[in-house]
Amino acid sequence: MAKSTLLLGGLVTLSRSTLAASNFPDCSSSGPLGNNSVCDTSLDAVTRARALVAVLTTAEKINATISTYPGVPRLGLPPYEWWNEALHGVAKSPGVSFNPDNGSEFQHATSFPQPITLGAAFDDALVHAVATVVSTEARAFSNAGRAGLDFWTPNINPFRDARWGRGQETPGEDPFHLSSYVKALISGLEGTGDSAGNKDGKYKKLVSTCKHFAGYDLENWNGNYRYQFDASISTQDMVEYYLPSFQTCARDVKVGGFMCSYNAVNGVPTCADHWLLNDVLRDHWNWTGGSDDGFWVTSDCDSVQNVFLPHRWATTREGAAAASLKAGTDLNCGTYYSHHLQGAYDQGLIDDTDLDTAVTRLYASLVKLGYFDPAESQPYRSLGWEDVDTPEAQQLAYTAAVSGTVLLKNNNTLPLDLKGKKVAVIGDWADATSQLQGNYFGVAPYLRSPFYAAQQLLGNDSVFYSAGPTNRDPTTNAWDSILEAAYAADVILYFGGIDENVEAEETDRVSISWSGPQLDIIGELALLGKPMVVVALGGGQLDSSPIAENSGVGALLWGGYPGQDGGVALLDIIIGKQSPAGRLPTTQYPASFTSAVPMTDMALRPAAGNNYPGRTYRWYQGDVVFGFGYGLHYTTFDAEISLPGSGESFDIADITSNCAEEYLDLCPFASVATTITNTGNVTSDYSALLFLKGEFGPAPHPLKTLVSYERAHNISASNSAQLALNLTLGSLSRVDENGNRILYPGSYSLQLDVEPGLATLNFTLSGEAKTLDEWPAAPANRSGTGTHEVPAGYFVGGYGSVNDAGGQLPLDKSEA
Amino acid sequence: MAKSTLLLGGLVTLSRSTLAASNFPDCSSSGPLGNNSVCDTSLDAVTRARALVAVLTTAEKINATISTYPGVPRLGLPPYEWWNEALHGVAKSPGVSFNPDNGSEFQHATSFPQPITLGAAFDDALVHAVATVVSTEARAFSNAGRAGLDFWTPNINPFRDARWGRGQETPGEDPFHLSSYVKALISGLEGTGDSAGNKDGKYKKLVSTCKHFAGYDLENWNGNYRYQFDASISTQDMVEYYLPSFQTCARDVKVGGFMCSYNAVNGVPTCADHWLLNDVLRDHWNWTGGSDDGFWVTSDCDSVQNVFLPHRWATTREGAAAASLKAGTDLNCGTYYSHHLQGAYDQGLIDDTDLDTAVTRLYASLVKLGYFDPAESQPYRSLGWEDVDTPEAQQLAYTAAVSGTVLLKNNNTLPLDLKGKKVAVIGDWADATSQLQGNYFGVAPYLRSPFYAAQQLLGNDSVFYSAGPTNRDPTTNAWDSILEAAYAADVILYFGGIDENVEAEETDRVSISWSGPQLDIIGELALLGKPMVVVALGGGQLDSSPIAENSGVGALLWGGYPGQDGGVALLDIIIGKQSPAGRLPTTQYPASFTSAVPMTDMALRPAAGNNYPGRTYRWYQGDVVFGFGYGLHYTTFDAEISLPGSGESFDIADITSNCAEEYLDLCPFASVATTITNTGNVTSDYSALLFLKGEFGPAPHPLKTLVSYERAHNISASNSAQLALNLTLGSLSRVDENGNRILYPGSYSLQLDVEPGLATLNFTLSGEAKTLDEWPAAPANRSGTGTHEVPAGYFVGGYGSVNDAGGQLPLDKSEA
Repeated sequence: MAKSTLLLGGLVTLSRSTLAASNFPDCSSSGPLGNNSVCDTSLDAVTRARALVAVLTTAEKINATISTYPGVPRLGLPPYEWWNEALHGVAKSPGVSFNPDNGSEFQHATSFPQPITLGAAFDDALVHAVATVVSTEARAFSNAGRAGLDFWTPNINPFRDARWGRGQETPGEDPFHLSSYVKALISGLEGTGDSAGNKDGKYKKLVSTCKHFAGYDLENWNGNYRYQFDASISTQDMVEYYLPSFQTCARDVKVGGFMCSYNAVNGVPTCADHWLLNDVLRDHWNWTGGSDDGFWVTSDCDSVQNVFLPHRWATTREGAAAASLKAGTDLNCGTYYSHHLQGAYDQGLIDDTDLDTAVTRLYASLVKLGYFDPAESQPYRSLGWEDVDTPEAQQLAYTAAVSGTVLLKNNNTLPLDLKGKKVAVIGDWADATSQLQGNYFGVAPYLRSPFYAAQQLLGNDSVFYSAGPTNRDPTTNAWDSILEAAYAADVILYFGGIDENVEAEETDRVSISWSGPQLDIIGELALLGKPMVVVALGGGQLDSSPIAENSGVGALLWGGYPGQDGGVALLDIIIGKQSPAGRLPTTQYPASFTSAVPMTDMALRPAAGNNYPGRTYRWYQGDVVFGFGYGLHYTTFDAEISLPGSGESFDIADITSNCAEEYLDLCPFASVATTITNTGNVTSDYSALLFLKGEFGPAPHPLKTLVSYERAHNISASNSAQLALNLTLGSLSRVDENGNRILYPGSYSLQLDVEPGLATLNFTLSGEAKTLDEWPAAPANRSGTGTHEVPAGYFVGGYGSVNDAGGQLPLDKSEA
Repeated sequence: MAKSTLLLGGLVTLSRSTLAASNFPDCSSSGPLGNNSVCDTSLDAVTRARALVAVLTTAEKINATISTYPGVPRLGLPPYEWWNEALHGVAKSPGVSFNPDNGSEFQHATSFPQPITLGAAFDDALVHAVATVVSTEARAFSNAGRAGLDFWTPNINPFRDARWGRGQETPGEDPFHLSSYVKALISGLEGTGDSAGNKDGKYKKLVSTCKHFAGYDLENWNGNYRYQFDASISTQDMVEYYLPSFQTCARDVKVGGFMCSYNAVNGVPTCADHWLLNDVLRDHWNWTGGSDDGFWVTSDCDSVQNVFLPHRWATTREGAAAASLKAGTDLNCGTYYSHHLQGAYDQGLIDDTDLDTAVTRLYASLVKLGYFDPAESQPYRSLGWEDVDTPEAQQLAYTAAVSGTVLLKNNNTLPLDLKGKKVAVIGDWADATSQLQGNYFGVAPYLRSPFYAAQQLLGNDSVFYSAGPTNRDPTTNAWDSILEAAYAADVILYFGGIDENVEAEETDRVSISWSGPQLDIIGELALLGKPMVVVALGGGQLDSSPIAENSGVGALLWGGYPGQDGGVALLDIIIGKQSPAGRLPTTQYPASFTSAVPMTDMALRPAAGNNYPGRTYRWYQGDVVFGFGYGLHYTTFDAEISLPGSGESFDIADITSNCAEEYLDLCPFASVATTITNTGNVTSDYSALLFLKGEFGPAPHPLKTLVSYERAHNISASNSAQLALNLTLGSLSRVDENGNRILYPGSYSLQLDVEPGLATLNFTLSGEAKTLDEWPAAPANRSGTGTHEVPAGYFVGGYGSVNDAGGQLPLDKSEA
């Protein structure tokens, strides 16, 4: 979301000084709000918010729609910065300020692995635990005047294309996985429930923000920039793939905030999309609570400007601001609300009612956070520096890194006994520090590289380090140093791949190949005949087939962005102190994928006529290098799965009528009893992924679909673990071309793990198809075909540039 | 050429210390070379070089093929760094070290405008003068042990595509322009002649290096990286467009060095292309001097590695090194010669004769520079700090910036009388410092921004500055500050465009549009109704039609990268102290160009069947925004042109038989007498561009072709200037599909300036067509079609990545 680092730096300074002045409003009885009902803790949130809004002038209400809120001094309302980040730990952002003095309080916060690594753990309890630490540390920062209460996380768009520079911020490519993950995450961040759904208390711990709503998963690919990209998405793909995680956020866990995105979907910029922000988000998903409202939508930073330029959806600046506010974008990061809402008001494009709606939502949200309430009534207000970077948090960061590491190849090489060995640690990631964090990071208490971990383990004299070529370095400049280290060692550990140099905000990749120099030196090293392990780092997958097929490389691991203790976690797996049990959260495609599939093509399903192979493990028709969910272990497993009772056939009318859930897709179908037995001799976790197959519902049919997962921990040799893999009716359903979610009669097959060998189970559904959810159709002219259209901006982009050929911009005086 | 800045930094340190030790070989009679003929100044260069090579071991000869040469201590040969840069002034590079201490000698060197700006002056005498200052300053640095004698400049590839990140390093898109420019440049750099061709003396002043040979003009576009790009070029386009500047370098001015490039042409990496480096370069262009040899080819940095990977033209590393050496790549920047030539020797792929050829060329080149000769016999050896940054050099840098500035639009706005006015200087370039230099720059004595110039002119209190959005900044963060400056001012000067953030080495553009935020704020400012000037900076053109068509913008200038005094030069033009007379050195295409023309398509000619509009002003079929050669003035001109004598018809046999030139295409045809009269009231230069039109030779026919140019200086009101615009037979000729250059009978038309209105003249050639130059055909399997082939690496690139789909790299043990 941060459009530029420069910006971040500047705003941090501003907001820190403002926050330091006075962190919370003055609700003392003698204060200017003493008689305003906003301070009356006996009233509901919306009533309290309305009371405050009632005393604001129009100009003050406009100010209240700006993310860097100046406050209202006459009312004792302090400035407030809505923009805080905490993607995988409290993070640098306009609202967050770390103490710059080393060794001081609030100098750092726990830095967990990136979501792509956490996602690879397939462990929702772990996700919840991590989120709980993050929100605890965030509240401690807030209490010290070093953070706000609203955090613009998570990025929960599916990782649709391996080239996406921000895919690292997501848990992966699968919508079921994302929904399950985000439910665990938000309950941890907002304190609205533990993993069993128990609420923490009266107050929200934080407000979390599900972003970027919707269809946002492209930075800048081949002249298509996020600011102007118009994603053409079919209704079926929209409901089936792009929206489930957001439905979970809004409907099922009632997250406090949403963020609309830079892109347009089927012609309409999302921040100005009344259908998306109202008909879908608020009405269909019931993202409202009546008197318990307080759910708001923020723009991405300057995405309201983008409604004017480069989308040119609005023909005037005031029109862009007005359309966004009326569509339901309550808060603006950027200048368009502050510069143009008054003009829009003067032109009659908006009125006080529009402003009241937005500002009431924002204040009601703050009321629910206890913002106007006495500190002494709120346990969260007593969190302090002693609750940050605890030993438990450090251990959890380490565990998360271990849990998310995936073993892709092991030719009897791992685990390696390194005792008494001389080890070369080579590569651009070998001495990684801030690389370990990926993007949207804070100051970590420490950043332990593989080189550091190896030195701790073996002593400095036994470890030979050489940097390698970065993923942007096309030279052989490091060759001499690399070969010197390798010649001196008994064992070669290569840590490379990609990082923020090639996958980042505003930077999509154009290639999913390893860089030539990295492959060149890996190839030379593999010729030396020494035990050799390659560890691929970075969020997006690289086609590792040249490494997988090279007999001189004994093992291949993938670690994503493993966070503050990532180097230690990786070394501990290499030496067998820990066992790998992560699974790939995205498909590893062959390099040819990028020539077959334009990144701008949003379609999931293959299209033979277009030579379009489709996307994700559910639809992609080609051979993959390593599939979604792939991951080896240091041991072997057997498994059994069974449905409860004797049922192998179910009547749709029966199973849909006996459900107390408000939404039919959430009705339980069954709990699959699963027994996992460790048949080898190494203790290991096992992440149980349950896939559904079968030809039911509309053709074409997906190859398989993830419908449930649980992670079993520390199964020792010859022992078993029992898991209950829960299935809902929704997980058996399909989405039709109109976006309706329907349960179809047919033959169903459940498969444990990515290949059929471990355990499978068949059952049938009979009777009439049943609609579980009826989709609110978009206006008639809004339905994207999703069928391989070349978007308008194709090839003609720029940083928010103008994409038609030499045409007159609507910038002449005539527009004013 | 520098593959990474990181590398540069590292090598600078190394080479400085080595250079400081001992700058020249020890040829004293008591020294180890005292009896070697290399020190005998009475002998020719090759004889001397051979005498030295004869006493070298094979290992020492291999060392001598490496650009960071370690020297031979036993022979008193010091280390020598071949890699020095001086694109537009002595520049940071491995061989060049600036004194880091402010105020010290050799702390800086004159920093002229980038070649794209110098090219826009269309003034070869200016080019020669600039190059003479550069070489003088370079020798002063050399004498102080702060530079070598070999400079890897110029980049003389035609600026084929506006997206090219390094187009800024070239004088423009036209091959005649490039040839004429490079002739003036190299005579100035090497001291081999003044603009009238008079040699300076016995010694070469420097050795200059024409690069990148050949077909190199793509960095990284859409997954196509220079390291793996295989340019498909027809023979006709090759001879007509891609090679003329190199032919001039080799055949006509006998430049000392060439550099082969990263890319392949028609399947063969250029550094391993025996046909290109021998049949064309050395044999056909006669780039040799027998006993006066000493012409060498260096690789680009690690381009020998690229022969192995990612080109995979050689199947082993040793094979790549051997093939490059045998093809004629005498020197290697990178590690492949140092690591793999010994292996190639051991495998019998090369022998001592191959090494002797390369090393003799290198040493003979040094001999010709006086490297082994007594300092006291060489005037260049007495140049010192007093010859650097002289007042004359400062004035020349200013003049060059003025001369290269182009006026594109002037709605009675310029020149502006700013006396007593309050002026807003706004935009990302308004306070430009290092931006003024573009790439390959040194430490300048000063870097004067437009903001600085305005303050000097008007006083600090009358100038309101605001930064604007950078070309990568998509935000409105600067809006408040910009509007504050604009509101306070009477006049608005906007300095923006692009810079190294979007056009750079390893960075091609994907869009040629102005960024949306820049257009947004320019549009808002234009609504204010104040006199407003936009100055577009950067090397590649942007589609400025939204600015040209906006009636609120009174004038539009283009300045490229105007160098150390660029801000003053631009302000002086704005206020009328100087008059603009530069001409666009490249076509300004509409934004739609990038969607019609893949950057990888090397074809010049349009192809209707492919919807391919062609490239450059000679062939492009669409409407342009501003054409090649376009440029307005503050005054008006009339002109007359005439051929000498009464001739309007010429017999081909006659005009080709009366010529003393070694090469027929260099034979004079006529000198077009040209009278330019200033009919307005402002003194101004006028750059006379003479174009040829007519339907002679093979169809299709170019729209027009630049065949001569001269710049007239300071023509005052009502006065005239006389110019002789010389034409050669070559400039009348066409190239056929086999690459032969032929003079055809037909009707010819000369046109002064870009449009026909000023002066035209017709004549005819009669008789038989005459071949002026017969092209040495490439091997049969080498002829590129040049007809819109999708190159192999299309869409599947990476930084030197592997471009086939998941295939096994030749990196397994089997290869060793």
